[in-house]
Amino acid sequence: MWAELRPLGRHPDSGGYRRYAWTGADADCRAWFQAQAEARGLTYELDRNGNQWAWLGDPGAGDAVVTGSHLDSVPDGGAFDGPLGVVSSFAALDELRHRGAEFSRPLAITNFGDEEGARFGLACVGSRLTSGALTREQAHELRDTEGVSLPQAMEAAGYDPHLIGPDPERLAGIGAFVELHVEQGRALDLSGDTVGIASAIWPHGRWRFDFHGEANHAGTTRLVDRRDPMLTYAQTVLAAREEARLAGALATFGKIAVEPNGVNAIPSLVRGWLDSRAADQDSLDAVVTGIEKAAREHAERDGVDLQIVRESFTPVIEFEHALRDEMNRILGGRVPVLGTGAGHDAGILSGSIPTAMLFVRNPTGVSHSPAEFAEEDDCLAGVLALADVLEGLACR
Amino acid sequence: MWAELRPLGRHPDSGGYRRYAWTGADADCRAWFQAQAEARGLTYELDRNGNQWAWLGDPGAGDAVVTGSHLDSVPDGGAFDGPLGVVSSFAALDELRHRGAEFSRPLAITNFGDEEGARFGLACVGSRLTSGALTREQAHELRDTEGVSLPQAMEAAGYDPHLIGPDPERLAGIGAFVELHVEQGRALDLSGDTVGIASAIWPHGRWRFDFHGEANHAGTTRLVDRRDPMLTYAQTVLAAREEARLAGALATFGKIAVEPNGVNAIPSLVRGWLDSRAADQDSLDAVVTGIEKAAREHAERDGVDLQIVRESFTPVIEFEHALRDEMNRILGGRVPVLGTGAGHDAGILSGSIPTAMLFVRNPTGVSHSPAEFAEEDDCLAGVLALADVLEGLACR
Repeated sequence: MWAELRPLGRHPDSGGYRRYAWTGADADCRAWFQAQAEARGLTYELDRNGNQWAWLGDPGAGDAVVTGSHLDSVPDGGAFDGPLGVVSSFAALDELRHRGAEFSRPLAITNFGDEEGARFGLACVGSRLTSGALTREQAHELRDTEGVSLPQAMEAAGYDPHLIGPDPERLAGIGAFVELHVEQGRALDLSGDTVGIASAIWPHGRWRFDFHGEANHAGTTRLVDRRDPMLTYAQTVLAAREEARLAGALATFGKIAVEPNGVNAIPSLVRGWLDSRAADQDSLDAVVTGIEKAAREHAERDGVDLQIVRESFTPVIEFEHALRDEMNRILGGRVPVLGTGAGHDAGILSGSIPTAMLFVRNPTGVSHSPAEFAEEDDCLAGVLALADVLEGLACR
Repeated sequence: MWAELRPLGRHPDSGGYRRYAWTGADADCRAWFQAQAEARGLTYELDRNGNQWAWLGDPGAGDAVVTGSHLDSVPDGGAFDGPLGVVSSFAALDELRHRGAEFSRPLAITNFGDEEGARFGLACVGSRLTSGALTREQAHELRDTEGVSLPQAMEAAGYDPHLIGPDPERLAGIGAFVELHVEQGRALDLSGDTVGIASAIWPHGRWRFDFHGEANHAGTTRLVDRRDPMLTYAQTVLAAREEARLAGALATFGKIAVEPNGVNAIPSLVRGWLDSRAADQDSLDAVVTGIEKAAREHAERDGVDLQIVRESFTPVIEFEHALRDEMNRILGGRVPVLGTGAGHDAGILSGSIPTAMLFVRNPTGVSHSPAEFAEEDDCLAGVLALADVLEGLACR
């Protein structure tokens, strides 16, 4: 399976993946999914929001056990984030058939569309639409950097954008959703475990800091006459790191836009985006408040005007305790339970149906990068753990 | 004159000018120049490098007195940088005709092409080509951000790019070039003068700092596991300001490029450009060495790889003392003589012919910005000073 999936959407220079929603690379991945479903005699289905389903048993019977993840990627992403969950789902089904398992509940494998949000700027579009967290009207407003709207992109890929919207009947037929994912930190590596169960997704958000200074000539403007927003930005970047360190949280400035962005021009505007996450809401509030305070103080000193806009925010998501405990029991109580700072379709769907996640060890913690990696033995351990969980849930 | 020139290439949102080489806005400005020349009965000429000339008297007579500047702009530049020199040249000629001046030397007014380098990244292309500081082969390699080469851009604008190259015969016919320019600092404002004479252009250069870190997920990577080049960049920006302050020099980070530039991604690469200038070479060396040292120390600490490339460098340019002294005598010894950190066509041409500059007071020091400004009275004082100089040089 890996051999066929690996080259799709891979950029020859970077070695990273560029599988963006409704592009040719995305279509290739979708064709791969359908072929895998059909090769196993599963009932293939495309839902109204562009998510793919492969059914074993009657989709209408209710109380289905669903597993899967996504196949799209961030810009120059790795091979594992998303695809590991889909590949492991098919492999776990193969393992269960090899064991001669008899299923008492319908089973489905899914590929949720546009999880990374690389093209339209919003993550988990497929699961958000299904759950109603994103309305059809909001989805129709989404545009990529070329100005192409989500409906236009769907139509260009041969899908009907008029159908998108909440899908409560589908969700009502699902009893449990389990998403396997490569870990994106080093918690399992540090604890020496191969597989873990997710406890919660940390509260997280994005804040835009607009530092407005005064455009001027870099070669003639005295330092004392400058209102240089790059200085205030630099102070804020360093303050963010310090606040996060003190709170045991995360804070990152990874995206920037500068005007006019000329070598010999003091910028008129430096726009920086803060991504911050913490294990609990109080810690996150403390970090962001601390960063905002430092930014405002430096802006005042530098003669820079500062606007801060919270662009998105997701409160803490606790995965359902009953499902998590049952998985832990099935796996013999031998796996650690850990939180994560990353968002997932399982987090979006946790508001509608019981969801859970399995993590597979990442020896370097690197993700969203061509260097993202998991050992083959650990991937196989993940498949067996997922097979055990599916057997425990769907074959009792 | 101003009224016709003012709307050309002005962006309706920013209020700034976007007059880039070989664009429609540039063509509009060139048409304006030609119309001004013809309205005064001057002989209009376009040279092989796309510079415009308006001649009073015989261009072939030799020992010509030339004045002028440029009409193109930086992105969202102001109305004065460049155009003030061209408009003042025509106005000074009008003033001299009003005085009934009789010319003993040929006089020309020029508009040098592509002075700001906004489109192809290299400043003073027109004067560099004429003087031979830029070869035809080098010019043919220049490309804009869309990948359009300089020859392609010239052809699209109706010019023949095969003709470009050094023009020593033209330069041999010029006895003096005087460029009037709005001051881009506040020296005249602080000294209370309306007009000044340039002594020298400070040595200046551009250095590219490539900070290579490791792309990773901003939501899951522990702070201690990060190699975040944005932190090193921020420290370097602050170090640059401090080094410049200590040396009484200038240092600016105004342009940045980040990869992958995603909100939830620790950057793999932060590329920052340093512009630094000082009154003398030793001071400039001290500033840049200090910044490089600080950047390397922080890179080491942050686990970031750093490459520093000097992209361009111009040593100090002293304007010809004899011409400068003669202008000072003509103006009654009443004008201050001052250095500048900004490059100009007069600086490029100073290696080939005697050149000099007149500065007009800038009350805020702001330039390369829509807020760039000079008082009408000061502009008129500039025209009269330029008229006096031209009369003194060309009518003796």
